[in-house]
Amino acid sequence: MSTGRILLEVNSFQPKRWEELIGAQRKIALERSPEIDPSITYAVLWKQKPNLLAGLPNLKVIFSVGAGVDHIMEDATIPANIPVVRVVADDLTRHMVEYVVWRVLDHHRQGRHYREYQRLRAWHELPQSNASDISVGIMGLGQLGQAAARALMALGFRVNGWSRRAAEMEGVNSFAGEAGLTPFLNATDILVVLLPLTKATTGIIDYQLLRKLRRDNRLGGAVLINGGRGRLQKEADILRALEDETLKEASLDVFQIEPLPKTSPLWSHPAVFITPHAAATSDPMHLVPIMLEQIKAYERGEPLQNLVDRESGY
Amino acid sequence: MSTGRILLEVNSFQPKRWEELIGAQRKIALERSPEIDPSITYAVLWKQKPNLLAGLPNLKVIFSVGAGVDHIMEDATIPANIPVVRVVADDLTRHMVEYVVWRVLDHHRQGRHYREYQRLRAWHELPQSNASDISVGIMGLGQLGQAAARALMALGFRVNGWSRRAAEMEGVNSFAGEAGLTPFLNATDILVVLLPLTKATTGIIDYQLLRKLRRDNRLGGAVLINGGRGRLQKEADILRALEDETLKEASLDVFQIEPLPKTSPLWSHPAVFITPHAAATSDPMHLVPIMLEQIKAYERGEPLQNLVDRESGY
Repeated sequence: MSTGRILLEVNSFQPKRWEELIGAQRKIALERSPEIDPSITYAVLWKQKPNLLAGLPNLKVIFSVGAGVDHIMEDATIPANIPVVRVVADDLTRHMVEYVVWRVLDHHRQGRHYREYQRLRAWHELPQSNASDISVGIMGLGQLGQAAARALMALGFRVNGWSRRAAEMEGVNSFAGEAGLTPFLNATDILVVLLPLTKATTGIIDYQLLRKLRRDNRLGGAVLINGGRGRLQKEADILRALEDETLKEASLDVFQIEPLPKTSPLWSHPAVFITPHAAATSDPMHLVPIMLEQIKAYERGEPLQNLVDRESGY
Repeated sequence: MSTGRILLEVNSFQPKRWEELIGAQRKIALERSPEIDPSITYAVLWKQKPNLLAGLPNLKVIFSVGAGVDHIMEDATIPANIPVVRVVADDLTRHMVEYVVWRVLDHHRQGRHYREYQRLRAWHELPQSNASDISVGIMGLGQLGQAAARALMALGFRVNGWSRRAAEMEGVNSFAGEAGLTPFLNATDILVVLLPLTKATTGIIDYQLLRKLRRDNRLGGAVLINGGRGRLQKEADILRALEDETLKEASLDVFQIEPLPKTSPLWSHPAVFITPHAAATSDPMHLVPIMLEQIKAYERGEPLQNLVDRESGY
C-alpha cells in the first residue's frame, strides 16, 4: 500500500479549496523539487505547467479535475504509461444538464425575442413550436451527453446523438463516426456540443458542419449550443454562419481563447448568449471525496474507474 | 343522442381556426338568435360576452378553451346547473412545464446577471448554487402543477406544493389550506404560481405573502414566477417587494390587466421578465379533437371528464 504524497496543481479555479480539502486527509505537495521525488504517488491536475510530471519514479495515477482531460492529453511531457482518471460526479453532470436544458428552452421558447419585445413594451405573442417538433442533436454521448438526452426527452424533445464510436441509448436516434455525421446534422435543429477535445475534434464546429444543420424547421433556424470545449469551434465560422442565417442563434459557454478577448464580436452579437465557461464548474466540495475514495479503492487493489483512453484522447 | 349545434365563442385567440376545425365535424353556431334556440346543445367558450347562454333550453355541456375557467365562473348569466368541462391536454401541460422549467432555470442559473456581464464584455463567473439547495414551491397542485413538479424534481430541485385541499404527491413536500400557507412560503425560495382564479385566490399574491418567502438562501433572494392568472397578483405589491429586496426577481406571464398597459413600470424593471400570456397557449389543432371526443363519449352515455366544481370555482 502506498502512502505517498499527492502532487496538486490546480490552476485557475479555487486552488486553495482543493489544497484545504485534500490536505485535510492526505499528505500533499504543492510543487515538486527539480530532482527525482520518490514521495509523490498521485497527481491531481488542472491546467498544469509542462514538465511537472517528468521523472517522478513512483507516480501511479493522474487525476483530472473536470470532465475534460485535454489539458493532460496535450501535455507531451506527461508519461504515457501512467493511467489518467477523469472526474465523474453527479454534481458536475447535474450542472451540465441544467445548462443544456436552460439553453435549449431559452432558444425554443424564444427568450431573445421576448426580451426584445419587453424592452419595446410590446405585448406580442409569437407562434410557439412544440418540443416534439424539435430535434436536439447531441454531439458526444458520454456521461454528460446521455444525462442531457434523458432530461430533454422527458420534456418532449426528439433527441439525436452522435459519437465517434456507435453508442445506443433508448429513445435516442443514434449516429456514429464520419459516415453518420452528415445524416445526424441534417436531422438536427438544435446542436448541442459536448465532445471531448482531441486531435480529431479540434475545430470540428466549422462553417461546413453548421451548414448541414436543418434550417427549415419550426424554430425558424438552426441553433448551436457549445458546453464542451472552445477549441472544438471556429468562432469566425460561427459569426459567418450567423450573418448569412445558416445559424439563427447560439449559446456559447466556451471559446477558442479564454477569457474571451474584449475585442471579440461575439460579445455584442444579438443572437449570441455568452457564459464564461460556467456551465458546469468542478466543485472541490463534491469532487475531493470522490477522488480520495478512488485512491483508497486503488490502494485496496481495486481497478480504477473512469480511465481515459490515451489512444483516443478521452 | 343529441346532434344539436355547438355554440362557439372564442374571443382573442385564433377564433377562425376553432371555427374551421370544429365546423369540419359538427354543426356550429357562431352567434345565437335573441330568441330561445333549441338547436344549441353545447357551448365552447373563451372570454364570451355576458348573457350568451341565458335561455337555451337544450344546452347540455359547456367547454372551456384553456385550463382556467374563471372567465366562465365569473359570468353570473351562465346557468348554474350546466356542467362545465375544463380542457386538459398534454400539449398545454407540456408547454406550461416548459415555461416553468425555463424560468426556474433562468433564475437559478443567473441569466439576468450573465446577460448584463455580456453587455459589459465582462468575463466573470458567478458562484453557482446546486438545484438540490433550492426549494421551488408550487401553488396549485393540479394537472399542471404536478407535471411541473415532476420535471423540476428530475433536475434535482426540491419541490414544495401548496393547494387548498391536501394533495399528496411522491417526492413533494405538501402543504394545504390556510394553515399550511405560511410554513409552505417559509420553506420556498422560488414561488411558482399555477393557481386557479377564484374568489378565494384573487389578489392572493400580495406583499404580505411575498414577505414570507425565504430570502436568506443560496439564490441570494426569493423569486416569483406567475404562470397562472394575472388577477392572482397585486402588481403594486410585487414592485414594492422588488424595491425592498423582499423579491430578487420575477417572471410574469400574466397580469391584472392584459395586455399589460404600456405605462406599467413592470416593463422596464431590470429584475422582471415579461411574456404576453404565452406560457401555454391553447392550440385548437390539439384541443379540438379532444373536445369532440369528449362530446362523442358523452353522447354514448359516458361520464364527462375534467368537470369543474362550481362550488370551489375550479
